[in-house]
Amino acid sequence: MNKIITISREFSSGGREFGRRLSENLGFAYYDQEIVQEIAKRTELSEKYVQQVMTHRPISYPIHIGRSFRMMADPNMDQSQNIFREQCNILREMAEKSDCVIVGRCADYILQEMDPFRIFLYADMPSKVKRCREKNYEKEDLSDKELEKRINAINRRRADYYEYYTGQKWGDRIHYDLCINTTQGTIKGIAAAIARLCAAQ
Amino acid sequence: MNKIITISREFSSGGREFGRRLSENLGFAYYDQEIVQEIAKRTELSEKYVQQVMTHRPISYPIHIGRSFRMMADPNMDQSQNIFREQCNILREMAEKSDCVIVGRCADYILQEMDPFRIFLYADMPSKVKRCREKNYEKEDLSDKELEKRINAINRRRADYYEYYTGQKWGDRIHYDLCINTTQGTIKGIAAAIARLCAAQ
Repeated sequence: MNKIITISREFSSGGREFGRRLSENLGFAYYDQEIVQEIAKRTELSEKYVQQVMTHRPISYPIHIGRSFRMMADPNMDQSQNIFREQCNILREMAEKSDCVIVGRCADYILQEMDPFRIFLYADMPSKVKRCREKNYEKEDLSDKELEKRINAINRRRADYYEYYTGQKWGDRIHYDLCINTTQGTIKGIAAAIARLCAAQ
Repeated sequence: MNKIITISREFSSGGREFGRRLSENLGFAYYDQEIVQEIAKRTELSEKYVQQVMTHRPISYPIHIGRSFRMMADPNMDQSQNIFREQCNILREMAEKSDCVIVGRCADYILQEMDPFRIFLYADMPSKVKRCREKNYEKEDLSDKELEKRINAINRRRADYYEYYTGQKWGDRIHYDLCINTTQGTIKGIAAAIARLCAAQ
């Protein structure tokens, strides 16, 4: 069976760079944005739309019917389910093709029968704010407090999405084999060390 | 500055064996029960008593005074504080002597100014129950459910103790550099891989 490494990560903890470097160190395939591109191709939806659906859980809205309230399903519910189904298919195909590193997309849960090595990356808030500024992700002139709010909001959205589709708590250590704090050291150094660890497993 | 590795661990997740093997792999000193022995020597208390105090946080008792309730401090409060003070002194002396691996005893918090590499070990419940039986820790004939209750009680006690002296939440990933799930693989294999990782840091 192929070696599958899945990476879940707090926003701005360096997950994407870590995943890429880890795959390079190990000589494994690397999947991240490629998953969105492939779903867009198969569903004939735009990449931007697919990306947007893949980062939000479907929600229900309260509506008035006569004198009472009812919950109305997200009008895009079917679309969300279709995209998630394609996501499952594509992840399984990728995992069956070769050894690989997969970033995000509930891959740890979806591929659980293939016994992936599940990594969760996190960092303290000052380090996430710093990385966010370095990446110039936020082009607006935000204070540290405002940036912290944004980071927390993105992480809450990731947690909601993950919990909706897996029924598991995002970031709960029991669902991962290794949780790595990226506050200290460089992502390059951490990835090289973890590659040695994965190669020895 | 010496390299300090601290190991916090859920009961029956293999922390003691991991710490010993990690220190052997790295050629570092290893401190675990030695800390209790040294405190007992310096305080002229029995090892058994010191061990008992070091695994329970002091608690307050409600007592009647006239018609009202007051909280009475643990009668052993002074003793607990003395032992914790000795524990801090001894840990610092050990950390200043040479590179070392220290298991438990709030060492991650007490030695924070020496920038230790902080590891937290955990495992899922079936694996902890299995390890507990293998170690023959529980000589009584307990069902799995009863054993789970014991394991949870010990971990709650560890959490209480840690939180009382550090003001931090035990097991909260942000206080550790690496959280390792020992459910899969052998402690020997995990320790060897992590030793390579620590040596590379």
